[in-house]
Amino acid sequence: MSSSDIFIGETIGTAILILLGGGVVAAVVLKASKARNAGWLAITFGWGFAVLTAVYVSAPLSGAHLNPAVTLGIAIKDSDWGNLPVYWGGQLLGAMIGATLVWLAYYGQFHAHLTDKEIVGGPGAQATQAKAVEAQETGAGPVLGVFSTGPEIRNAVQNLATEIIGTFVLVLAVLTQGLNDNGNGLGTLGALVTALVVVGIGLSLGGPTGYAINPARDLGPRIVHALLPLPNKGGSDWSYAWVPVVGPLIGAAIAAGIYNVAFA
Amino acid sequence: MSSSDIFIGETIGTAILILLGGGVVAAVVLKASKARNAGWLAITFGWGFAVLTAVYVSAPLSGAHLNPAVTLGIAIKDSDWGNLPVYWGGQLLGAMIGATLVWLAYYGQFHAHLTDKEIVGGPGAQATQAKAVEAQETGAGPVLGVFSTGPEIRNAVQNLATEIIGTFVLVLAVLTQGLNDNGNGLGTLGALVTALVVVGIGLSLGGPTGYAINPARDLGPRIVHALLPLPNKGGSDWSYAWVPVVGPLIGAAIAAGIYNVAFA
Amino acid sequence: MSSSDIFIGETIGTAILILLGGGVVAAVVLKASKARNAGWLAITFGWGFAVLTAVYVSAPLSGAHLNPAVTLGIAIKDSDWGNLPVYWGGQLLGAMIGATLVWLAYYGQFHAHLTDKEIVGGPGAQATQAKAVEAQETGAGPVLGVFSTGPEIRNAVQNLATEIIGTFVLVLAVLTQGLNDNGNGLGTLGALVTALVVVGIGLSLGGPTGYAINPARDLGPRIVHALLPLPNKGGSDWSYAWVPVVGPLIGAAIAAGIYNVAFA
Amino acid sequence: MSSSDIFIGETIGTAILILLGGGVVAAVVLKASKARNAGWLAITFGWGFAVLTAVYVSAPLSGAHLNPAVTLGIAIKDSDWGNLPVYWGGQLLGAMIGATLVWLAYYGQFHAHLTDKEIVGGPGAQATQAKAVEAQETGAGPVLGVFSTGPEIRNAVQNLATEIIGTFVLVLAVLTQGLNDNGNGLGTLGALVTALVVVGIGLSLGGPTGYAINPARDLGPRIVHALLPLPNKGGSDWSYAWVPVVGPLIGAAIAAGIYNVAFA
Repeated sequence: MSSSDIFIGETIGTAILILLGGGVVAAVVLKASKARNAGWLAITFGWGFAVLTAVYVSAPLSGAHLNPAVTLGIAIKDSDWGNLPVYWGGQLLGAMIGATLVWLAYYGQFHAHLTDKEIVGGPGAQATQAKAVEAQETGAGPVLGVFSTGPEIRNAVQNLATEIIGTFVLVLAVLTQGLNDNGNGLGTLGALVTALVVVGIGLSLGGPTGYAINPARDLGPRIVHALLPLPNKGGSDWSYAWVPVVGPLIGAAIAAGIYNVAFA
Repeated sequence: MSSSDIFIGETIGTAILILLGGGVVAAVVLKASKARNAGWLAITFGWGFAVLTAVYVSAPLSGAHLNPAVTLGIAIKDSDWGNLPVYWGGQLLGAMIGATLVWLAYYGQFHAHLTDKEIVGGPGAQATQAKAVEAQETGAGPVLGVFSTGPEIRNAVQNLATEIIGTFVLVLAVLTQGLNDNGNGLGTLGALVTALVVVGIGLSLGGPTGYAINPARDLGPRIVHALLPLPNKGGSDWSYAWVPVVGPLIGAAIAAGIYNVAFA
Repeated sequence: MSSSDIFIGETIGTAILILLGGGVVAAVVLKASKARNAGWLAITFGWGFAVLTAVYVSAPLSGAHLNPAVTLGIAIKDSDWGNLPVYWGGQLLGAMIGATLVWLAYYGQFHAHLTDKEIVGGPGAQATQAKAVEAQETGAGPVLGVFSTGPEIRNAVQNLATEIIGTFVLVLAVLTQGLNDNGNGLGTLGALVTALVVVGIGLSLGGPTGYAINPARDLGPRIVHALLPLPNKGGSDWSYAWVPVVGPLIGAAIAAGIYNVAFA
Repeated sequence: MSSSDIFIGETIGTAILILLGGGVVAAVVLKASKARNAGWLAITFGWGFAVLTAVYVSAPLSGAHLNPAVTLGIAIKDSDWGNLPVYWGGQLLGAMIGATLVWLAYYGQFHAHLTDKEIVGGPGAQATQAKAVEAQETGAGPVLGVFSTGPEIRNAVQNLATEIIGTFVLVLAVLTQGLNDNGNGLGTLGALVTALVVVGIGLSLGGPTGYAINPARDLGPRIVHALLPLPNKGGSDWSYAWVPVVGPLIGAAIAAGIYNVAFA
């Protein structure tokens, strides 16, 4: 794979990942969305199918890392660091593009949510749902949640531990792909399994911190949140921003270490 | 593939797509349905498995486009426009047949919903659910929603943008199928991935407009809604009808353009 | 395949199908079940994975029809009626065994539900859920629903139409399996697709009648319901019993006819 | 496979199984979790994707039994008992490691739940959900449920029967894997089917006892629950502990017996 294919593939793939991943959070939490209050299962499956779509599209170009932690784990496993900067660059750029596309796709919803302006639906609009919305939380917190993760209980050590454990599982699963089916465990079926592993990590380990398990997934959209002209958007919670960057990288390193000892 | 195989395959496939896709909306929104209020996850998975079933059945005959935007994207990618009219014709006819079959399968539910007539269930009928129905919205809006999409916030530019973005993701995923698994990414596994991509687009990008992402899926059933002898059915919202036709076609053209630049 | 392999395979497979299929209804509707009120998605996915498990186990022995309508459709397609009685016999016997196993697995729940006796859970019992149960419907209706289907609106013509349409989709999908992947569309992946098609039919077409789409699935358990020593169980609704037998057979015949005209 | 590969594979695999499986219960039942009250579907899919991840990772090392009942069934089928102690040892150790990791990942949630201490979320914390939590059950019962299963209706014979039936289905499905796809039914697709079979067993047969269907899954975490320094944790319900050990072993033996008679 050429460096330009890697860069383009990671940029397009991570953009799709964040477009769909941020999109499902917007769909579930913002006002005037048909999916409002669709719940945690919707969010975890939405992120999983975001992974599926993004991996499927970008795999032919870049191998579909889409996650600096995955790139780090593969670099440690292979002791090959040459392409790491290209991967990381494409991932961060793609994440920022994806977050911007979420803003475009949900433009009206973001503004309705943050300004509480009156919503006028057409014949197809779901009046009942719009009413149910009144009882729901509004404001800046859910909007930041469309872009970046945040903890339920703010404790750096605990939050870091949760992100390390979650990313460890993800990267170990990605590294063992090459061992399955006599080395043919990659491809479309591998993309599907990876997607469902991510659904599983979300369901099982997403409760405390919202499972960033991917530095680009959290940092890129947080930068976009800080830049976008959203009214009443509040702060971007930069004091927490290092946790979903450092935690996943540590988790990936541990996974690669265990892989090299036990599996290689 | 012969023109007649294409036409028959697209007609049967799109009929199944709309039968199951419109069906799940009927199941969730109409009175006297066991699935009433089953929620947004039920709708998105229902549409996804509609795609799976329809693609699986029609792929051997026509390659299973089932969507004028997909046909457009493939035509641009291949610079081959010969079969486009046959595909589009079969898709529109099939969508109209499918919408009519939804009406037959849910005949009693449509009439109960629109006329509020007393519902008499048998020993297996769910009395609790029937009572819960009282608190729910009734009338013409949900019935049109069984056939066609409508926006939560009516704004042509925003609604068009959402449909463009959603269809862009779908068509890019379809176009890259041929690149996966050394060109063997199609077939049953490709049908499954496409179906789950559609679930993902619904979960992530369906909130603002209900994700038509397919001109035939919206226009065909809207025509049927206008023609069917449903009591108190209200208008068919023709002023919005162009958005889910034009938006998906634009999104598909963009996807094909990016494909030809970055992937071909 | 020998006649004895077919009979044993269909008996075991249909027993697993009904054990898991009836089981999920018991789990969702009966008192003192951890899954109480888990909803329509749980029921439709539960039936789908029941199909997956049953097909996966019995396919090596009998080809996994597990449904008299599927057997009829294949017999019409192949003009080969020799094994039809063996298939149908195994399917009916298996369905009765499966329904009996549901009764054993949920013995305490059936009796708690029908007699409203006090429920004493251990430390792991979910007290909150047990309380929520009070507000729910009790009695004989839901118990019959564990065994057999019943319509929300009782109208023989409409109910028959819904069962015909649903089974038509199922059997057409099963018949086209052999055409996919250059004739390799069967096997494990075919089992998975069939299972998800059944989830889709349930989500999309299950609202009016509860989607029997399988004569053995409805008749076998209804017989068992009539025979079991359940207290206060009420009648077995025999007046409706012909609909989920006749409807699926008609739907299968139409699917086989269309298959022979358009696909063969 | 060498004994050390088997031991390492089973230890890692079962640790991941219990980390994700126990994790999803923690996510759904504990205070201050974003997934609180996500419901039974979340729990059953979470356990299923735990199986998927664990099997996928450990299959290249140990064949991924991850369950003493599965090991017993395979030993009976093959009349080969040589590696059984190594498998069982790795499984029990792995289950204890996994349960400890759940405690680390949800450390703050366990303590918030058991001590009802005030919860201070960041900007991303979901205040609405935190309030809804008030109405929910607190205390020791749900915490034990993160580790081990417990019945809704405490009756040894009935609970044993339910566990026997559930494990019978699981082990029969595992044993028939080798028969599918001309002996190629294992691998990634086999892992996926097994995972979905476990989702199905959970949905359909999990209502009465919480479907241990795996002695190590229940005993290992119960030991950890007894050892961990959790405040106000209550007892570990040792009087029930034999049921989810003995029941699954009986179910596996029956499955292997039927397999050897009907399928071999």
